[in-house]
Formats: sequence, C-alpha cells, structure tokens
Amino acid sequence: MSFNENFENGIVILGAGNVATHLSIALTNAGFKIKCIYSKTITAAKTLALQVDSHYTNEITQIPVEADLYIIAVKDEIINEIVKNIQLKYGIIVHTAGSIPMDVFKGQFENYGVFYPLQTFSKSRNIDYSNIPICIESNTQILEEKLVKLAKRLSRSVHIVDSEKRKILHLAAVFACNFSNHMFSIATEIMNQSGIPFDLLKPLIAETAQKAIDTDPEKAQTGPAVRNDQNVIQNHLEMLKDNVEFEKIYRFVSESIYKMNQKKNK
Amino acid sequence: MSFNENFENGIVILGAGNVATHLSIALTNAGFKIKCIYSKTITAAKTLALQVDSHYTNEITQIPVEADLYIIAVKDEIINEIVKNIQLKYGIIVHTAGSIPMDVFKGQFENYGVFYPLQTFSKSRNIDYSNIPICIESNTQILEEKLVKLAKRLSRSVHIVDSEKRKILHLAAVFACNFSNHMFSIATEIMNQSGIPFDLLKPLIAETAQKAIDTDPEKAQTGPAVRNDQNVIQNHLEMLKDNVEFEKIYRFVSESIYKMNQKKNK
Repeated sequence: MSFNENFENGIVILGAGNVATHLSIALTNAGFKIKCIYSKTITAAKTLALQVDSHYTNEITQIPVEADLYIIAVKDEIINEIVKNIQLKYGIIVHTAGSIPMDVFKGQFENYGVFYPLQTFSKSRNIDYSNIPICIESNTQILEEKLVKLAKRLSRSVHIVDSEKRKILHLAAVFACNFSNHMFSIATEIMNQSGIPFDLLKPLIAETAQKAIDTDPEKAQTGPAVRNDQNVIQNHLEMLKDNVEFEKIYRFVSESIYKMNQKKNK
Repeated sequence: MSFNENFENGIVILGAGNVATHLSIALTNAGFKIKCIYSKTITAAKTLALQVDSHYTNEITQIPVEADLYIIAVKDEIINEIVKNIQLKYGIIVHTAGSIPMDVFKGQFENYGVFYPLQTFSKSRNIDYSNIPICIESNTQILEEKLVKLAKRLSRSVHIVDSEKRKILHLAAVFACNFSNHMFSIATEIMNQSGIPFDLLKPLIAETAQKAIDTDPEKAQTGPAVRNDQNVIQNHLEMLKDNVEFEKIYRFVSESIYKMNQKKNK
C-alpha cells in the first residue's frame, strides 16, 4: 500500500511553534485534514489542535502510523531525534527547515522531502500564505510532483530548490530578515534612550523595504556611508561610544556599504 | 519689512538632488511658488526648475534676495559655504539636514531654522509626502509656528525637534534605513552568486518591515541568532569564509541579537 495522492488519510504535524501553527492553519483552510499535532509541550499541541480540529499528543509513540504526510516543523536540533523515533507505514515525511539537508531522512524512510516556507512567522500575526515562496525538494520525481501540487494549493509561489541552494537561501534570509530587523531594534533602542517615539521611524522603514522590493537595494542605498561622509560618520561613532556593540556594528556596516558601492562603480 | 507669512514672495531651493527634488514638488503641489532653484550643476538645476516652473541658476550671487524662504537641501559639507555666501533681505533660511545643528546659521541671519523630512528619497521614485515626518526647529517661537504651518500643508506628521534630538533621530534612521538596506544588499549578493532570483526574498522583506511597524522589532526577532542555534550559525560562518566582510557582519550582528535578547529576558 502507498500513500494517498490527495493526502486523504490525513496529515500529521510535528511541532506546535510559529511555523507549525501557520502551516497547519493554511493546510486546513486549503481543505486538508490535520490528523494529529505532536509536540513535547502538551499545552502547545492542544492549543494548535483546537484551532485545526485535530487530535494531539506529546508521545511520539502515539502518533498515527497510517497518515499520508508527516511534516516536521520543530527546532533544527530536534529533527534528528524525531527521525530516529517516529514510526510510519507508507506516508511521506518532510521537514520545513532551511539549513537541514534532505539527507537527514536517507536510509530511514522510503518517501521523503523538504517543504520550506520562506517567511518569518509569529503565532500572533495573521499571514497570507498565498504569496509565501514554498521551496520543495524530494527523493523521487513522482513525490516531488505530489508535494508541488500540495504546495500550490497553499501558495502561488512554489519552487524546486535542492538542499545546497536552500542553505544559501536560508543564509540570505537571515541577512534580509533577522539582521535587518536587528537594525530596526537598534534604532528603537537609540530612540527609546532619548524618549523619541519609535513611530517617527515607521514611514522610513516602510519606504526602505518597499524601495528594496521595487528596485535593487544596492542601487537604492542612501545616507552618510555610501557618500563616505566622514563628518557625519565620526559624529555618529562618537555618539555611540558608550555602546561598544552598536559602535562596532556601525563601523563595520558603514565600511561594508562604502566598499560595496566602490566595487559597483568600478 | 519682514517676510510674508504665506511665503507669497516665493521660496528659493538650494540644491537639486533627491531631497530638493521631492520637497520642491511637494511645495508646488501644496500651492507654494518656487521662485528659484540653485545648484552648482546647472543641468540639475534646470531639470528640477522645469518640473516646478521656476527660475534657476548656478551662481549664488544670482539668487533673488527678496524671497520669503530659502531651503538649503544640499550635501552637509556644502551648507557652510552657502551660509557664508548667500545674500537675503528678510527671508527665513532653513536647512534639511539631520546631523547639522541649527546654530550653523547663528550670527549670520535674523530668521532661521531647520526643516528635516525624515525619509529616504530617490529622484526616480514617487513618494507620498503627506505621511513623511517633518521635524521643525527655529530660533524664535513665531517663526517656529510659521514653519509648522507650512509643514502641515505638506504632511500630517509635523514635529518640533531640537538639534540634539534631531541628531539622535538621524543616527537611528541610519540604522533603520541605510543599514537594514545593506542587509538586503548582502542578501542580494549571496543570492546572485548562486543564481537564485532575489524575488524569492521579497515577501520576507515586506513582512519583516511590516512586523517591525506593527509590533516591537525586538519582540519580533526570529532566526538562529536569537535562538542561539550554534549549529546553523557556525554553518553560515563557514559558508561566508571567503568573504571576510560579510563574515564579520554576520558574527557581530548575531552576537548583538543574542545579547539584546538576553538583556530583554533578564
């Protein structure tokens, strides 16, 4: 017996965090049946299960063995543990991690792959899944097609991406998302220390992102670093002298902006 | 004789770059008369003058002396030169720079101030001036009110900000705009080197900015650094080992994200 093409025997979600939550909801909205939510934290499993009308468990041995699809959406370091302990009959098993190669499943399962949604998820935020890029990889062509078909029911942006490229994509995403967000956080701290409301920066943040989306961010660069305006730069470094951390970031990022611009204009 | 309250004797714009262009257009759209555009680059002066139906010149001595308002929107290092050489009878003189104190005008003019629009401007992009925060400072109360009144005809976000706070705001803006944009640029380079289209990152960039705007960016942080996921971090550093620049930024920003999170959770 093999898995049902339309996943009619249901989907098991392993994990109940940000990625698991949004994916479970999107799958349910697209008409798929979530059969079971597994999480070590039983309250997290229950909370998500209630949202998607599913069973739940915190015991890996209690996970149904006859589901069609098992999606592992947990912290990277727990994936191996799940791979070692989970029992399944014929279903496909995939993970959602940017940096973990597909080979983590090799030799353990017959049908496996990766289902990587490229987005930053927080439980408390609603998100439109339909424009999230979903990166698919699989150990067989047929399976790849099944996963693509499934992904297309959630999003109009579905891509075949192998483990090597997915790793690069994840690295780029860390810069584009986590690191840019940290720049917003530092800006917030600087504002807060001086009692200036963060609200003043919001139109600037919105336009910065929109400009990067509409044009090439390298071409869109403005400010003292790209002009190499040393008066302003030295002044800013002086203002940051009590915060070694921020000063260091200011110095290196400014240098990097200037160098990238020099290289571009060569 | 003093300046006309409604600036009916016209406005002179010194500069024809990104800030000058958008400000001239916004002022014209709000019904103000641009009397003259001055720029050392005569073609730039002419291009902008044609857009706002104004005279133009590249000779500072040719600038009309009887305008009501002179707005200096040039590179920081040229402001002093203009302050030394410009002749005016009774108009108000302001600059648009984040990091230059208002005192640059002290002893030289009777009526002066600062008109700082907090946004990233590119000539080629249309921009809605009505939600750009405009930071006003002036040497007299009466003048401050006039400038606020003028600014309110361009934007619904007008603020009184002194030179010290404006400097801090500008520093925060460098992080929030230039530095976050550089993270987008690095992401682009990483993607380009591997032939992965940058488009894949666009929904992530849009959501990262929107999340920072809707919530607190510190609380919104996700990714390997905030989880202190050393497997992923070491892997990423290894991938960047041929690019000292990017590796250094990755290391310091990751450390800073982790430390900020530790401090927050104390």
